[in-house]
Amino acid sequence: MADSPSLLAALAAIVGDAHVLTRPDDTAPYVADWRGHYPGIARAVVRPADTGQVARVVRLCAEAGVPLVPQGGNTGLVGGSTPDDSGREVVVSLGRMTAVRRVDPLGNSMTLEAGCTVLAAQAAARECGKLFPLSLASEGSATIGGVVSTNAGGEQVLRYGNTRELTLGLEVVLADGRVLDALTTLRKDNTGYDLKQLFIGSEGTLGIVTAAAFKLFPQPRRTVTGWVALTDPQAAVDLLAMLTDAVGERVTAFELLGREALDQVLAHPLEGMRDPLAGGYPWAVLFDVSETSARMDPAEAVEEVLGMALERGLAIDAALAASGRQAQEFWALREHVPEAQRLHGPSLKHDISVPIASIPAFIETAGAALARALPGIRIVCFGHVGDGNLHYNQSKPPGMDDKAFRARAPEIHDIVHGIAADMHGSISAEHGIGRLKQDAFLRHKAPLALDLMASLKAAFDPRGVFNPGRILPPSRP
Amino acid sequence: MADSPSLLAALAAIVGDAHVLTRPDDTAPYVADWRGHYPGIARAVVRPADTGQVARVVRLCAEAGVPLVPQGGNTGLVGGSTPDDSGREVVVSLGRMTAVRRVDPLGNSMTLEAGCTVLAAQAAARECGKLFPLSLASEGSATIGGVVSTNAGGEQVLRYGNTRELTLGLEVVLADGRVLDALTTLRKDNTGYDLKQLFIGSEGTLGIVTAAAFKLFPQPRRTVTGWVALTDPQAAVDLLAMLTDAVGERVTAFELLGREALDQVLAHPLEGMRDPLAGGYPWAVLFDVSETSARMDPAEAVEEVLGMALERGLAIDAALAASGRQAQEFWALREHVPEAQRLHGPSLKHDISVPIASIPAFIETAGAALARALPGIRIVCFGHVGDGNLHYNQSKPPGMDDKAFRARAPEIHDIVHGIAADMHGSISAEHGIGRLKQDAFLRHKAPLALDLMASLKAAFDPRGVFNPGRILPPSRP
Repeated sequence: MADSPSLLAALAAIVGDAHVLTRPDDTAPYVADWRGHYPGIARAVVRPADTGQVARVVRLCAEAGVPLVPQGGNTGLVGGSTPDDSGREVVVSLGRMTAVRRVDPLGNSMTLEAGCTVLAAQAAARECGKLFPLSLASEGSATIGGVVSTNAGGEQVLRYGNTRELTLGLEVVLADGRVLDALTTLRKDNTGYDLKQLFIGSEGTLGIVTAAAFKLFPQPRRTVTGWVALTDPQAAVDLLAMLTDAVGERVTAFELLGREALDQVLAHPLEGMRDPLAGGYPWAVLFDVSETSARMDPAEAVEEVLGMALERGLAIDAALAASGRQAQEFWALREHVPEAQRLHGPSLKHDISVPIASIPAFIETAGAALARALPGIRIVCFGHVGDGNLHYNQSKPPGMDDKAFRARAPEIHDIVHGIAADMHGSISAEHGIGRLKQDAFLRHKAPLALDLMASLKAAFDPRGVFNPGRILPPSRP
Repeated sequence: MADSPSLLAALAAIVGDAHVLTRPDDTAPYVADWRGHYPGIARAVVRPADTGQVARVVRLCAEAGVPLVPQGGNTGLVGGSTPDDSGREVVVSLGRMTAVRRVDPLGNSMTLEAGCTVLAAQAAARECGKLFPLSLASEGSATIGGVVSTNAGGEQVLRYGNTRELTLGLEVVLADGRVLDALTTLRKDNTGYDLKQLFIGSEGTLGIVTAAAFKLFPQPRRTVTGWVALTDPQAAVDLLAMLTDAVGERVTAFELLGREALDQVLAHPLEGMRDPLAGGYPWAVLFDVSETSARMDPAEAVEEVLGMALERGLAIDAALAASGRQAQEFWALREHVPEAQRLHGPSLKHDISVPIASIPAFIETAGAALARALPGIRIVCFGHVGDGNLHYNQSKPPGMDDKAFRARAPEIHDIVHGIAADMHGSISAEHGIGRLKQDAFLRHKAPLALDLMASLKAAFDPRGVFNPGRILPPSRP
């Protein structure tokens, strides 16, 4: 069975000939990540139609000793959802399983299959007057199975939590092909260990998520969106505290942008993009305050806070979006940062988190250390201040050779990760480990935690069928 | 070492003579649950002063093959925190470890030791202007280690989530005495499997929680408390939907009380207790709507909803608490239900959850089935409608012998649990399994889920040191 022709025939017998892809043209979208950092080779790409087919595929491959790489929208950033270059791995794409199984507005829950996109999930919730609050730049392609497996974060974590906190239940195919039905929508269920937690954020290494049930929330009726110019990151932290004091958990997003990030966006603008405020201020904050009650309006409270911030010299200038369209323009600036940085040249990316109070010290310490290591390096800093999560990226010094800059990557990563770790932070706040961050993960995670993770992997996937070598190194034979 | 004198001497060498209790007078508070259903015998009660001592106690007992029963405030309802009657088990009480290690108002987090009470935790948060939202009847005695180990729920889960959702990090002593430091306060950290989840809600069977870090929230500035008379449970579900539509996630608590529950309270009242509304209505709802912004007041929106509910015939009558004192009086009625039922005679207790939309059907179906099984049985139904969680209890028919009533318990439990399970509900929404609910747990949980739980137990506690026989049956040798 381990020889390819009979394996492929057996896979085709489960999912149909049309859904076992082997020609390079057909497999191309599945074998490399979208940034092109991890070009791989798949023995085959299999596209099952339902949970039963996933289970049969897993059982077949497990028995044949063929490793499987589960894949959703393939929007990951850490090489966790594409095959390696051995040609041994079979990609299991959940892309055909897109059903919205059930929406329960009274119970504030929704059950979806793994291949449903985040955008489609948002739409299904909206149709019944509810909010599915997961929101991230890749939401048009990212799928439910992917966001669960990576515990995706995004822009509204401050108010609604990570994917883990949105997840009520899961359906999971295990490494021996058995199907765990933990697809509950209950808010309270203390009957033994909460098994679903194991599969959330484990990047497809412990099981294949085939469906998930999520919490839904009241739909916001009004959103106040603001853009504030600030002198330094400490002012951002202080402004967040003031805003939270004034409007409580209505603060839904609170994003920081450094000048370099904004300058890169304005140097590679999409149509109509412009700086909302004049003066070349060093830092900006973009925030949303949203209100779910039609009877209340937080605008006045927000204006009062901004007035106080200006008066105290905490803010240099501030603008509230006058319309939904203007709010979208503010957000477009923020969302264009990664693409602008790509257009600007090679970039080094980090996705760190630190306790919120340590954000200013992190930015100062890391900036100084990088300037010493590579004078002229550009810091492209933006991220979710409310969660302590910064995308702390770098562009090369003006005039430096691309290749020479890329060669410095390991050293730059070590500096940034080391400073985050020293501040009790994380080297991967929301992107996960995959293959890209395994070295840093092994270096910074406590040995005892690594031991326990290896025990879990051994208990749930003793033969190493699922995504071997991702997160943890391949287990010793 | 397994013989008692040398074991006791070795324990005393770790925690000090004064903290190894063996005399029945000294161990009495630790060896039985507060309801007196599980009188046990401890080989000793050990009271370590810090995490290092806990680790040494665990290592010693693991090596000697002595089972350990971790204990917090001993307020549990399922026999999970007291020793059995074998005299073999050592109770590890965390009661001396009461430190508030750190409160970080800017980062909205707080780190506490396991023996700190929930009430003390609430106070520590309040002192820095924040809210620790866990709130339950036993909060004066229940401890942090206990609420984490049982994933406690309580009265504000609707808005703030269970203990699991409040927990950011944990410190845990493992079965071999190693200490897992996962005591982070980060909101986002996707570096491998989220190990802390395993210890939340596992009732001390996988590790001993010695400290925990929690989320804090903005303190509510105003709370609107209402008492509404209703004709049936469907009206409660409808009213919840209307209220949520009007004020969003400000609905902080939404409790249902059946007439029998209220009558028992009024038959055994504390000083000054009276029915907030006249007319002997069959069902009541008690709700809190709380607002964290000092600048906004939801009272008008709540009044409007109640007006609509009265107009549509959904509500029979309604009262808003005119003062904080009156709000406390409303809540005292709700909180007095368990004690009133105890004074009323023997009671059978259930802690089920079902999807919110199924609450009316559950109450109708279970009520009819119980009336058939035992004509005249009294249904004492109250609970957290917003979470689908009902404390669906029974008192004996008038005139029935106590013992004869108790003898029917297994049959009554089966009926209630069976109906909840048929409705995709849970047989234990917030109280856990312990020893009391193990039979029902084994009967209603999927065999695959039980298998996976047994693998976790085997991976984390291969020698069965921690709380053997609780949740899962003792492992076969």
